[in-house]
Order: sequence, then structure tokens, then C-alpha cells
Amino acid sequence: MSQHTQALTEFLAALHYQQLPETVVSRTEDLFLDWLGSALASQGMHPIPLFERYAAKMGPGSGPAGILVNGQSSSAYFAALVNGASSHLVEQDDLHNSSVLHPATVVFPAVLAAAQDLGKSGRELIVAAVAGYEAGIRIGEFLGRSHYRIFHTTATVGTLAAAVGVGKLMGFNQQQFTHVLGTAGTQAAGLWEFLRDAADSKQLHTAKAAADGLLAAYMTADGLSGAKNILEGEQGLAAGMSSDANPSHLSQGLGERWALVETSFKFHASCRHTHPAADALLALLQQENLSAQDIASVTTRVHQGAIDVLGRVQVPQSVHQAKFSMGTVLGLIAVYGKAGLPEFHQYALTDSRVSDFRDKVSMLLDEEVDAAYPQRWLGRVEVTTLDGRTLQSSIDEPKGDPGNTLNRAELEDKFRRLLAFSGARTDEQATGLIGLVWDLRYLDDLTALTRITSLTGSAA
Amino acid sequence: MSQHTQALTEFLAALHYQQLPETVVSRTEDLFLDWLGSALASQGMHPIPLFERYAAKMGPGSGPAGILVNGQSSSAYFAALVNGASSHLVEQDDLHNSSVLHPATVVFPAVLAAAQDLGKSGRELIVAAVAGYEAGIRIGEFLGRSHYRIFHTTATVGTLAAAVGVGKLMGFNQQQFTHVLGTAGTQAAGLWEFLRDAADSKQLHTAKAAADGLLAAYMTADGLSGAKNILEGEQGLAAGMSSDANPSHLSQGLGERWALVETSFKFHASCRHTHPAADALLALLQQENLSAQDIASVTTRVHQGAIDVLGRVQVPQSVHQAKFSMGTVLGLIAVYGKAGLPEFHQYALTDSRVSDFRDKVSMLLDEEVDAAYPQRWLGRVEVTTLDGRTLQSSIDEPKGDPGNTLNRAELEDKFRRLLAFSGARTDEQATGLIGLVWDLRYLDDLTALTRITSLTGSAA
Repeated sequence: MSQHTQALTEFLAALHYQQLPETVVSRTEDLFLDWLGSALASQGMHPIPLFERYAAKMGPGSGPAGILVNGQSSSAYFAALVNGASSHLVEQDDLHNSSVLHPATVVFPAVLAAAQDLGKSGRELIVAAVAGYEAGIRIGEFLGRSHYRIFHTTATVGTLAAAVGVGKLMGFNQQQFTHVLGTAGTQAAGLWEFLRDAADSKQLHTAKAAADGLLAAYMTADGLSGAKNILEGEQGLAAGMSSDANPSHLSQGLGERWALVETSFKFHASCRHTHPAADALLALLQQENLSAQDIASVTTRVHQGAIDVLGRVQVPQSVHQAKFSMGTVLGLIAVYGKAGLPEFHQYALTDSRVSDFRDKVSMLLDEEVDAAYPQRWLGRVEVTTLDGRTLQSSIDEPKGDPGNTLNRAELEDKFRRLLAFSGARTDEQATGLIGLVWDLRYLDDLTALTRITSLTGSAA
Repeated sequence: MSQHTQALTEFLAALHYQQLPETVVSRTEDLFLDWLGSALASQGMHPIPLFERYAAKMGPGSGPAGILVNGQSSSAYFAALVNGASSHLVEQDDLHNSSVLHPATVVFPAVLAAAQDLGKSGRELIVAAVAGYEAGIRIGEFLGRSHYRIFHTTATVGTLAAAVGVGKLMGFNQQQFTHVLGTAGTQAAGLWEFLRDAADSKQLHTAKAAADGLLAAYMTADGLSGAKNILEGEQGLAAGMSSDANPSHLSQGLGERWALVETSFKFHASCRHTHPAADALLALLQQENLSAQDIASVTTRVHQGAIDVLGRVQVPQSVHQAKFSMGTVLGLIAVYGKAGLPEFHQYALTDSRVSDFRDKVSMLLDEEVDAAYPQRWLGRVEVTTLDGRTLQSSIDEPKGDPGNTLNRAELEDKFRRLLAFSGARTDEQATGLIGLVWDLRYLDDLTALTRITSLTGSAA
């Protein structure tokens, strides 16, 4: 095993609650609320009911772990599976920039299901989540941009992040963390190919990452051994799935740099790659007092990753695809001033003003933006107006980024809007959940987080 | 979608029992018996009980699908998982040469579990298995040698093979086969790194391939969409995990060439890469009337894949690792004249004559052998005797290969030995199972294949 994997696994084994700065603890609670909202927002939306039915068919009829969208219960494996699927659907869950990893949607489903199964406390959940974030983000950075070009990092690395989180909950020592990385890493999968067809794989990816990671931890606890050098070995993850892996990322700043607090909240309901340009355009429209019909064309200057992920869809056929269409996102911004869930579902595919605007938008690779990525996601747009002016706008930190983050009031507002969007919980229930999450570090019993009855006092 | 994927999915959708030549039907029965023996042979051996416990913890207490090693039942997902794990442990399951795929251990667990769940007949099981073999072997050939260098093809391609088999059982049309390939392909995972540490991932790989493939088919049947071009797309399987993919393999000889009958049975209980040299050495020892103590050194002339898979273990620490040690395998052949399960478990790690012989064995890359691989697995050994002679031996078709296959009497004998080795079933029960399998095409009810009670007439 290399010094970097060794250092990472030693850090994970030694990590404890008292070591966490207050900002890390409170940000974990923020991220957890944000995740909970994302999961509940997808209630009833395709393909989530398919995962619910699969869990009902293959799993036990009930169990110790809760399924958020329907308030039912199952074994930890199936709760992680369904909650992992549901929390990534509406594209409102968090993102870590430099790793291009969505940590919440893979870490929280696994650690919450395992914590409920094992009877762990909110404090233990927080430490477990931090372990999952810190490991997952560093492994994502380690695998680099070449990995993300083909592989959906949240799927692949997500499996390891989830496994580490559950392992922490189980009190793994350094050897067990090594094994669980091996067992999770050899299950790591997820290809971007589905984007081209707007296929349902994105939810499958996060579902499987959370559930497979949980499987890895449970089986490691029972004695399953894994490869000792799965990250850096000659036939390991980087050897097979990266051409620019950098092992030093694995141990970078352990215990000093808390990668979890670098995680961004999503403000717009679209793919994160569209946010810098959306914010830059929004700033320009407000500053110049322009509206959609004043614009002749928009050139967004972007990083290569944005072109790879967004470039293949010209005319979106589904709401999900619309979230990956730069033109549609900017069209919603230009016409409605925002690109939230309601705008996507009501207007993204049907409003001709949005589709007209979409056709005016192009993407251009920009050297400065590309060089800054993925550490910084710079927004650069160049707008030509119908009256012949050329205007430029730039933002260096999109809304929701660590330096431009959402405060608790904004997070509560987003949470309530997500729940109202799906109707998964009443506003009163939302209030109850918010209270529970802001008390997460003091909770001894985590069952109330997923049970609908516990909030209403009556059967759901 | 390319013409090759199109042709493959059209073939799969149209495939029907009447179309299968008698040799294909009877060989499928042969392969099924061989698989059943491999699964039962691992009863009680690490890490199989871990999978049994995981299924018991996460799944329902009982269900429509049978778990072979313990005679219990669960949902189809967990039966596929445990049977997938157990059938690859003793390294006695079949292998297809040019794809380097072990089809049985991934296809049969999935299709048997699904067939029991769905109440399908033996005839339908046979067609489903043929679909899984034909698709899996071609996809393995398509991904090529560069894939196998890092990835465990039986794990990655196995997921697709299992999915196709279950999809056939469910009567998928061409569109559904396209979706199921997408959904299975984006879950495809499995790295060789574990071999270095003799970690338990090999069983995890086959377990997950069978179970994930089954998941893909069930969710496709319920409407989950997958990428349309997962095999050949710009961000698909070959793009991410191969550098020498050849799409023409996908459609090669569909309906004319039956790849299933090209599958080899394993005669020795070791990694297939050791078999050509083992057979060549055995022939030489018999011909020259030599014994282990007459030999000064053995040079095996092998293909690169053998060096990649076998080259990292010098001194095996476990029985499983011994099966991947060329020197140990040849040592057993030289000392005992065979390398079956009893020899591995009783002598591979403890007999100093075997370890002394092991240290006399080396591997050398041979151009002719490498060029023939993986279509043909040539055995070439050069032996130096203590009295100063240099002898050479070569075999062109190892025992168990299609041109040197096992007949039904040999298969029955192997089956009985496998069951006697583990004690999973009595010899009387073995007789009952053999009878069932030779009648597979006439069976309406497949539950008796996994239930212990049905064979003894009393509770197990």
C-alpha cells in the first residue's frame, strides 16, 4: 500500500467527533437538510417508483431503515438504494467542485440507512458523513479529469465514499478501511453514455453507489477481504479508469483541510456545469436591464468538462435532459429570472420563448476557465444584443459555492420549496424535519427522520 | 446504435427454442450440471457464508428462489447473489477461451433465480442461458485483451450476460434488450487488483455480476431506460475500459456460430491459465516416465494474459492463491499426477515436495502461444532433468476444451466428486440432481433443483 492510501485509512480510523471544528459539524447538518430535501422532492417522479417496487419485491416487507419518498421501511440495503436514487433526481443536491463529486446523494443514503439499522446517534452519523465526504472528495480529486470524461464520478467514487461512511459508523480500524476501499473500489461503475439518450441511469448510479458501498462495509465487518491497493495498484481503479491520477490528492491536508466545507449547494435546479454561465447571464441582465427578447446571441465560455457533459443534447426531450441543456437553462434565466424546479417542469419544454432563446446560446472552450477548473468554476458569457452591442459578464464564484454559500434561512427556504414541489411532506412536516436536522448532533434516535407518522401523529 | 449492437439485440429478441441445434441444448444441460456442481462444492468455505448471512440480513427470510449451498430460499436477487458467489470459488466452472469469460457462474445464478421466481420451465431456462452465453461471449470478445489486462471480464461482461439471460426469460423485445444492455453495462465493474492480495473479491465479482444483471432485467421490465449505445458509444464500455475493442465481434455468426458449445469444462481445479502447461507437463511425465524428483527446472512458454494473472504470486498463502500459482499447479501434477480439489486442499500449501517443485517453475512469454491466444490456449513446456536432458512437450487443446471435451460420464464423475468434496449433498442426492439436469428440457418446475428436501424426502 502506498503512503497516501495508508495516510488516508489511518486518518479515517482515527477520526472522532471532538476533532471536528464547529463549522464542519454545522455544515454537515446543512448538507444533510439539503440532501433530505432533494430526496423528498422526487416523490412520485419517474424512475423513483421503479426503485421502490424493486425494493418491495426483492427486500423484506419492512425493516429498520426508512425509505424517504414513501415513508416505508426495509433493510438497510434497500433503504440506501431507494434514497440514493431519489436524492439525485431533481438535480438539487450538493456538489464538490474540484472532485466533481456529488457527495450527499451517495454518502447520506448509506450512512442514514446503516445508522438506523445499527441504532447509531446523530453525532455518529455526522462523523460517518464527514469520513465519507473527506475520503470521497480526495479519491475524486485523485482520479482526475480523465476519469470524469467517461465515468460518472459520483457513481464510481460514490461507492467508495458510501462504504467509508458506513465503515466509520461501524468503527472500522485502519485495516478494515483498507479492505472496504478494496471491496468498494472493485464495484465502482458508472458511464456517462446514458446522457446522450436521457436514459434513467443517473438514478441507478447513485442508488447503486450508496447500496453497493453499504454492502461493502457490512461484508467487510463480517470478514470479507479486499485488495489492499485498489486506488493506486497496477490493476486498480486508476490503472483502469484514469490517465491523470495524482496520488498526493489522497492524503492532502488530512485533518487540517476539511473538504466537506468546500462543498457547494445548488441554487439552480440544473446540472452544475450550467450554473456559472447562468449566474453571469443573470447578473448581466439585471445590470443592463435587458430581457430575453433584447438578446441576439449568447456565447458561454466554458471548461471542457461542461462541453463533454452538456454538449451532446441539442433539443432536450425530457425535463431531465433540459437540465443538461445550457441553452434551456439560460433561456429560463432570461425569460423567468430563475431556473428552479417549477420553471423546469412548467416551462423548459413547452415555452417557445425558452426554446427560441436556447437556439441563440453556444458554448466555447475558454482557456482561462478550463485552467481554473475544477478547483474554480468561472462564469463567462458574451452577449450580443439585437441593437448591436456586445456585452460581457463574468462571475468567479457561482451562488452556492463556499465563498457565496446559502445560509440557514436560504437552506430552509430551498427545503420547503423542494417539499412543496413534490408534496412529499406538508409544510408543517417540513418544519418538524428542519427542527430535527438542526438538532442532529443531539439526536439519539434517527428513526423520526424518515417516518412520516412521527411527524403527523397519524398513519401516513 | 451501431449495426452490430442492433444485430445482436435483434438476434436476442428473436431467439427461440426450436432454433437451437440439439448439440446446443444438450451442451447447455452439460454446462448447467457442471455449474451446479461448482456451486455446491463451495459449501461452508470462506467467504460463501458471508454472502449467505448478508442475504439473510438484507433480504426476506424466504422467497421463490433457492440458495444452493444451504438449501434455503430468498428473493431472486439474493439467490442470484449467493449462487453467483458460490459457483466460482473452487475454480471448477466453465470458461470460454476467446472471450476469457466464465459464463456459467454469472449466467446460471441469474437465470435460475429468475426462472424460479417467474415460474418458468427448464426449456425456457435453456433458451435464456443460451442468450446469456451468446451475448456475453461476443461482448467479451468485443472488449478484447486490453480490457482483460485490468478488468475481470467475468465480472464486467458477466453483468451484461446475466442481464441478457434474465431478459430472455422475461420475453424482452429488441428495444428492451437495448435498454437492459445499457443498464447492465453502466454497472459493469471488477478489477484484477485483488489477486495480488488473494482478497475475496473474485466471489464478490461473480455474485454482483449475476445479481446486478438480474436487477437490470427486472428494472428494465418495469420501464427503466438505459443508454442505447453502451457498448460502442463515446462514453460507453469500450471507450472507458478497452483500447482494442472490435465491434464486429458483437454480431459475428449470430444464429450460425453457437459460442456456447465452444465453452471449455475445467479439468484441473486451478486457474485456466495454468491448464495448457499442466496438460503438457503431465503428457511429458507419462511419456518419459519421469517423476517430480527427476526434474531440475520447468519453463512454461505462455501468453501474456497468463503472466498478467499468474505472475504476481510467488509463494501462495491460501488455497485460492495456489490455484493461481503456475509452480504449485505443476508441482501437484508432478507429485500427485493431478491437481483436483482434494490435492489443492490437502497438499498445495503443506507438501514440501510441491513447494520445492514450485520453485523450479518459471514462465516465459512465447510469441506463438501469445499470438494464438485467446482463440487457442496452447501448452508448451521445456523441462530440464537432473541427469542433464532437455525435453519439450506441447499440447494444442487442453483437456476440457471443445475438441477435447468431457463426456456425460466424465461430467457426472466430476459432479459427484465436487459434491463429495464439500458434503453439500449425498451421493444419492447427486444422483437425483443428475437425473433432473439430464431431463432439464422437460422440467416444468425448477424448484427441485435447489431444494434439499425434494431429493431426500425429509427436511434437510
